[in-house]
Amino acid sequence: MIVETQSARFDSFRLDCGQMLPTVDVAYETYGALNANRSNAILVTHAFSGDAHAAGISKTTGRAGWWDNMIGPGKAFDTERYFVICSNILGGCAGTTGPSSIDPATGNPYAMTFPVITVPDIVRLQKLLIDHLGIRRLLCVAGGSMGGMQALEWAVAYPDMVASAMPIATTHRHTPQQIAFNEVGRQAIMADPDWNGGNYYGGNRPARGLAVARMVGHITYMSDASMKEKFGRRFRGTGEPVLDFSSEFEVESYLRYRGSQFVDRFDANSYLYITKAMDYFDLAAGRGSLAAALELATARFLLVSFTSDWLYPPYQSQEIVRALRSRNRDVAYCELRSDYGHDAFLVTVEEQSEVVRGFLSSTSRLMQAA
Amino acid sequence: MIVETQSARFDSFRLDCGQMLPTVDVAYETYGALNANRSNAILVTHAFSGDAHAAGISKTTGRAGWWDNMIGPGKAFDTERYFVICSNILGGCAGTTGPSSIDPATGNPYAMTFPVITVPDIVRLQKLLIDHLGIRRLLCVAGGSMGGMQALEWAVAYPDMVASAMPIATTHRHTPQQIAFNEVGRQAIMADPDWNGGNYYGGNRPARGLAVARMVGHITYMSDASMKEKFGRRFRGTGEPVLDFSSEFEVESYLRYRGSQFVDRFDANSYLYITKAMDYFDLAAGRGSLAAALELATARFLLVSFTSDWLYPPYQSQEIVRALRSRNRDVAYCELRSDYGHDAFLVTVEEQSEVVRGFLSSTSRLMQAA
Repeated sequence: MIVETQSARFDSFRLDCGQMLPTVDVAYETYGALNANRSNAILVTHAFSGDAHAAGISKTTGRAGWWDNMIGPGKAFDTERYFVICSNILGGCAGTTGPSSIDPATGNPYAMTFPVITVPDIVRLQKLLIDHLGIRRLLCVAGGSMGGMQALEWAVAYPDMVASAMPIATTHRHTPQQIAFNEVGRQAIMADPDWNGGNYYGGNRPARGLAVARMVGHITYMSDASMKEKFGRRFRGTGEPVLDFSSEFEVESYLRYRGSQFVDRFDANSYLYITKAMDYFDLAAGRGSLAAALELATARFLLVSFTSDWLYPPYQSQEIVRALRSRNRDVAYCELRSDYGHDAFLVTVEEQSEVVRGFLSSTSRLMQAA
Repeated sequence: MIVETQSARFDSFRLDCGQMLPTVDVAYETYGALNANRSNAILVTHAFSGDAHAAGISKTTGRAGWWDNMIGPGKAFDTERYFVICSNILGGCAGTTGPSSIDPATGNPYAMTFPVITVPDIVRLQKLLIDHLGIRRLLCVAGGSMGGMQALEWAVAYPDMVASAMPIATTHRHTPQQIAFNEVGRQAIMADPDWNGGNYYGGNRPARGLAVARMVGHITYMSDASMKEKFGRRFRGTGEPVLDFSSEFEVESYLRYRGSQFVDRFDANSYLYITKAMDYFDLAAGRGSLAAALELATARFLLVSFTSDWLYPPYQSQEIVRALRSRNRDVAYCELRSDYGHDAFLVTVEEQSEVVRGFLSSTSRLMQAA
């Protein structure tokens, strides 16, 4: 399945902060075919560092999508039955307008003059895309991590457009610990002199700071158990520790490699803006309470969490489940056993596929019956 | 209780890496009085960023010691009964020789020419100090976190000198996750151009990198629950979020403050060397197995862990307890309930005092009976 990223443009996009972006481009991909009555569309929302390339093989890079094990013919999000859409989020750096985009007013990259964005802004832009594609109601909005925040916001902000929502390994708002990890990443970037107040485009990018930020991130995405399984205390090279700073545990080389690799594909200012949006996100804000917010939704919900996920621990999904139940909303909850930590939503394919498949089938039947 | 840091000097100190330090200074403090038969001495070993000033009020700085709530007249380590010693570790930056010390061969700071040190090196230097003080057997070696590693090494390396050991909130070796958090700190320091390969003495210190490293550390020292209790999602100042980068969650200001404060009292190169020593530490290495290593000890053990400590989780203390039991060693284990995470060993005074007091009393009675 060779796929190409497409693009749509929207003008005069107003943001929660009060500012307006004169023009916004949205990069997106679609998989499968929209049926005649346009009732089989699923929006997949990506996590912090994801992009529009969720499935298939990219025509330009040759790489598989970030959720390719879940989306495709015969897979959990079965593209023989469903029309799946994924778009790069506002503020991103993979085709959708963000701080690295050119500000038409100046002809230079926005950098830190880009307005602060929120998860509701991100979702409002996705809604423009869904409108543009001529879809009035989504069979499902599904996503993990920050993608789950978007799924929650979709169900609450546009209840008539969302038949079901699948927030996976996520929360309705960050705890101070989650904010703290993001803040460390931001400080690492801003501590890099090459960040230069955000004005590094055309010069040296803040590669060292961004790499450190990514290393912290990777630790939080894995688990104690999965790191033991993957690295243990093995040394790189000889296998024998040499008592100097040249000696490296495998886990050290891995983190450094992932850090340096990230620098090639991600923009440091996008890191700042998107993590801020995550930290500000609070589904209950302006809606009274979490339960009152969720009462606005009419979607069926499937919440999924993973036992070893300590970044978005199961109790955070359970809070949402309790709030939905308290307002008599339709909600299923699965806590899946996995040692993969937060990354589990990307790699625990078999168990996750089973619950996703069943949930989509029954939602599909209900939509047809309605 | 006004206290003064003292100093002892030892020559030709050989290290595990094979190199020799021509001269080593050790900063130490003592509290209480050594009894006539020298049987009431307790060595308290400090954690990563600690120093010799464990108790009382420093004559020079006016500050209380880092374990002042546990050490003093009538306290858990009762200085009316016991003679308590604490020394700054080898590689440190608070009076004991480390990378910021002058290399007598060059007249300049060692910086990164300082040899790599190990926890056994740290303990061997402490032994020289204990010998120097004329103490042949310690009533107890007690410490939390990296201090617990030292207590374990003491009991195994010098069994005849250790009547009891109290490793608190610690492990016999780092998991890859623990190594990973340390590595992020090291990378943050080394990413700072002011680090300059370690040669920053007399110039700008790598303050930004060291601050980021400390911020990561602080997150791991607290718990999800304690951060919620302390910060919640409160904003600094107005209390209302402003949608720009000037708005700060309280947890962000706190971490930045603690990061910048740390820079004034800690040397970045010491950060590198000491975290390396922690990562390399493996009590079982060269001793067959953990059980075989611990069989070398004759001390009574008290292991203490804290329910919410996710940096050194209770299961790591339990591994040590199981190994001790498997070789029929005398061991007590307390898992104390606390929301304070790893920091609990510094702040959960009441419950910890109770178990410490009882353990020291019974050890004292056994020593007198022997």
